[in-house]
Amino acid sequence: MLAPQQCSKDARISARRDQIIAAARLCFRKHGFHGAGMAEIAKTSQLSVGQIYRYFANKDAIIEEIVRRMVMKKIQLITGNAHNLQQIAHNLAHRRIGNLSSPFKEDVCSEQKEQAEIDHALMLEVAAEATRNPAVEKIWRDSEKQLFNEAKSFLSKSFPQFSDEEMTAKVESLAVICEGTAFRRLTTVHADAEVLEALYHRYFQDLFNTDFTPSKPE
Amino acid sequence: MLAPQQCSKDARISARRDQIIAAARLCFRKHGFHGAGMAEIAKTSQLSVGQIYRYFANKDAIIEEIVRRMVMKKIQLITGNAHNLQQIAHNLAHRRIGNLSSPFKEDVCSEQKEQAEIDHALMLEVAAEATRNPAVEKIWRDSEKQLFNEAKSFLSKSFPQFSDEEMTAKVESLAVICEGTAFRRLTTVHADAEVLEALYHRYFQDLFNTDFTPSKPE
Repeated sequence: MLAPQQCSKDARISARRDQIIAAARLCFRKHGFHGAGMAEIAKTSQLSVGQIYRYFANKDAIIEEIVRRMVMKKIQLITGNAHNLQQIAHNLAHRRIGNLSSPFKEDVCSEQKEQAEIDHALMLEVAAEATRNPAVEKIWRDSEKQLFNEAKSFLSKSFPQFSDEEMTAKVESLAVICEGTAFRRLTTVHADAEVLEALYHRYFQDLFNTDFTPSKPE
Repeated sequence: MLAPQQCSKDARISARRDQIIAAARLCFRKHGFHGAGMAEIAKTSQLSVGQIYRYFANKDAIIEEIVRRMVMKKIQLITGNAHNLQQIAHNLAHRRIGNLSSPFKEDVCSEQKEQAEIDHALMLEVAAEATRNPAVEKIWRDSEKQLFNEAKSFLSKSFPQFSDEEMTAKVESLAVICEGTAFRRLTTVHADAEVLEALYHRYFQDLFNTDFTPSKPE
């Protein structure tokens, strides 16, 4: 058991890290990883640069923690949703990735929406930076791998009849559709969501060789 | 008809623009849009900054031309391939987007591979930059729209039985899979390409309600 002062020290460290991460997210979103320096992150988080370095060794460590948190959020969403492929088809057709609504919809609170917008921008920033910065490439690859394996392990429980090889291909195909949908989020051509949902619905049924409960999602 | 000196003047302008674009692609790939300035592009293309401005009004104009050329390349690939959904399923399962092989394959010439790597990195850079720069957002959206409409118009010729609304959903679903596959190109988990190809194959057959010739692709 931890002594009370240890608890409060851990809580303080954790709060400081949260404060820095929140500031860094805003700075990276505004100027990209290259444009945002430690000085700007310090200023935005109302700490000194020296204080920042007590919590994160460098900018890559901050990026790593941001990606880690985004992946955790995605894993929570998967484990809350993956059993419901019908809901996933519905969300994809409406371009809802995580809490990320279509920019033209107004059905989640604005704070959630704002954070989801930042997640989306940072995901693209990480992917772009990964093509030229080996440290970020490693962070990105490791996080994608973790996410993939969590999704696969979760879906394997619901569909134990498939071999590991089959399951890997099915999860890859789902991951491609989820990430392609997120990538295309700001495109201007909009397919009719119901027609698109029916296509995904049929594909997922075929993919997992299962009938979904035909109850209306949401 | 153009006079000979007009022809050679046009050819000279065109060659200069190619030279600048090739240099800008390398600079953007290395440092991102923010990190690469006009001075660096000038130096890499062995021209003066003043000369660059005679061909492009600003950095955004260079980005626009780069995106325009990438879209043209993609449209050429579509019009060469879209009739062959079996080939598309094959390429997607092997993560071949355009001339872009899987980084672990060695089946296209190295110059093509290098240009395709740059295309991939620039596509991510454009998408990331589009989230914070309205000028690039417009370039990206317009190019995606053009590409979408070209693909749709091309596929509509092969499958005239579908309504406009149905076709839009089918093309969106294809676009999601193509761009999701490109996005996931550097991920480390690899599904077995044959198993994945079979999944896409069945989906595309269902999508266009058609049987593909079962001849082996390539």
